Amino acid sequence: MPYSHEIRVSWGDCDPARIAYTARIPAWALEAINGWWEHHFGGGWFQMEMDHNFGTPFVHMSLDFRHPITPRHRLICAVAPTRLGDTSVAWRVIGRQDGAVCFEGSFVCVFTIADQFRKAPPPRPCAPWCSSIWNPRQNSAIARAFRRMPIVRRQGIP
Amino acid sequence: MPYSHEIRVSWGDCDPARIAYTARIPAWALEAINGWWEHHFGGGWFQMEMDHNFGTPFVHMSLDFRHPITPRHRLICAVAPTRLGDTSVAWRVIGRQDGAVCFEGSFVCVFTIADQFRKAPPPRPCAPWCSSIWNPRQNSAIARAFRRMPIVRRQGIP
Amino acid sequence: MPYSHEIRVSWGDCDPARIAYTARIPAWALEAINGWWEHHFGGGWFQMEMDHNFGTPFVHMSLDFRHPITPRHRLICAVAPTRLGDTSVAWRVIGRQDGAVCFEGSFVCVFTIADQFRKAPPPRPCAPWCSSIWNPRQNSAIARAFRRMPIVRRQGIP
Amino acid sequence: MPYSHEIRVSWGDCDPARIAYTARIPAWALEAINGWWEHHFGGGWFQMEMDHNFGTPFVHMSLDFRHPITPRHRLICAVAPTRLGDTSVAWRVIGRQDGAVCFEGSFVCVFTIADQFRKAPPPRPCAPWCSSIWNPRQNSAIARAFRRMPIVRRQGIP
Repeated sequence: MPYSHEIRVSWGDCDPARIAYTARIPAWALEAINGWWEHHFGGGWFQMEMDHNFGTPFVHMSLDFRHPITPRHRLICAVAPTRLGDTSVAWRVIGRQDGAVCFEGSFVCVFTIADQFRKAPPPRPCAPWCSSIWNPRQNSAIARAFRRMPIVRRQGIP
Repeated sequence: MPYSHEIRVSWGDCDPARIAYTARIPAWALEAINGWWEHHFGGGWFQMEMDHNFGTPFVHMSLDFRHPITPRHRLICAVAPTRLGDTSVAWRVIGRQDGAVCFEGSFVCVFTIADQFRKAPPPRPCAPWCSSIWNPRQNSAIARAFRRMPIVRRQGIP
Repeated sequence: MPYSHEIRVSWGDCDPARIAYTARIPAWALEAINGWWEHHFGGGWFQMEMDHNFGTPFVHMSLDFRHPITPRHRLICAVAPTRLGDTSVAWRVIGRQDGAVCFEGSFVCVFTIADQFRKAPPPRPCAPWCSSIWNPRQNSAIARAFRRMPIVRRQGIP
Repeated sequence: MPYSHEIRVSWGDCDPARIAYTARIPAWALEAINGWWEHHFGGGWFQMEMDHNFGTPFVHMSLDFRHPITPRHRLICAVAPTRLGDTSVAWRVIGRQDGAVCFEGSFVCVFTIADQFRKAPPPRPCAPWCSSIWNPRQNSAIARAFRRMPIVRRQGIP
């Protein structure tokens, strides 16, 4: 039961072919992954970088576009982590409208120490992830662990 | 009690100053106005143009930026029409985060016949608007009238 | 000697990590492919769809992000078609700043009859492409052929 | 003779009405103002904030949309500062395609000390601006002064 992220597709997302412009789709997939973090961790990339000093920049993305996307339905993006490496995490995002698969995407991020822009193992609370991928109950354990992380706001952060 | 449109501000909306990039703000105000139509009319600009052959292109916008916007709170945009002219409609949009006013904007659109890109009076169901601005109960009457408009999809529309 | 497309990276393209936001990168790659068409064909996707009634919607994209992109240099995107199938065309885009490879991407588009949104063989002038990929002089032959295509503007097109 | 900034309007900038989506226009005006800084100062907002620790956040924008914008021509944006206050600067941006005025905009920014997000007088080299607005030769004096500013990169800046 992966996290579901709802996108409100609208007029400004569409191109003269009257369907969502291709470049909007990877942007939505990223929004959905950020939403996964917000949901499980209690804050998205902004809070991860600014308050906890870790980042997850992307090193790879691959998308297949299966069906046009229009403003006639909400776009529901299912998001799940698929692999946790020593310093990386892979994601799967599937976008559906009215039940039909519109796109499928695979993404790979690396963990970094944000203020050094340097690769690093995932922060401690991610350790149980590997198993959690097959055992969703663990996700809430991670969430609880993340939420216990002290907030150390980086200087000059709004 | 104007319509409220919720925006999920995120990492990708922020610039290196760690606040939402200015150009995102008029884009959000437009999204909120489109949301007003969706809420009251049952479809946004896409359905208005594609199924009902009327458009509302913008001829003016004016915004004051009062407070930085960050991903720490949802951005709540209050939207209300403020004036209905013979062939135009004016809007007010106020964006707030955590109770603080972040921006205020005024917008003017003209009504057009979409496939002719020609100015025209608002479609019949908008007639009672003038009064409805001061009498919100009328809004639902407009909505009902709009919903009764026959759908005449323009050719080749997804 | 592929086509080179210059992108002016700026403040609004960057995120709070002070580098270009990931979702900007596929958008730039698409801009660059559109620029290829403009350069070789004399018009981009807009003219192709609106004046010549053929489209090239994307069915796949895959990108590797090798190096952060900043506003300190122009981003130079080299674009080349890599394969012309019966109803598809594949592209390679490589983005560089100050000589360093920042991203590499592969893209697949299908040819469509625009007003029917239906797959179709590429329009006649593309036929010599296969060879042209290894023989750049042919590119200008294609360009000339494209430029001779009659303009048949679709109805109601600005 | 104001600074001219060229925008390559393309397919992805257009909406289903087959003209540039309204929200793209303030974004382009901002790009053009950033281009003004790049041209006169030798670096845009990124370099101003990151290397010289001053910012110019927007407090107001007002735009009139006069004519639809399409990918058929480059959009040429003329940019000029119109007023330099104690802690603010106003801009005028006029966008033209094929000679026709498409939009006109007024913008107001305040000067800030970037890492404190606090209003401040413009940095020293802006002082002669007031006069330079009527005396364009002064602009190059400002540019020279700006270019002499020592670069003091803020910590952790790419």
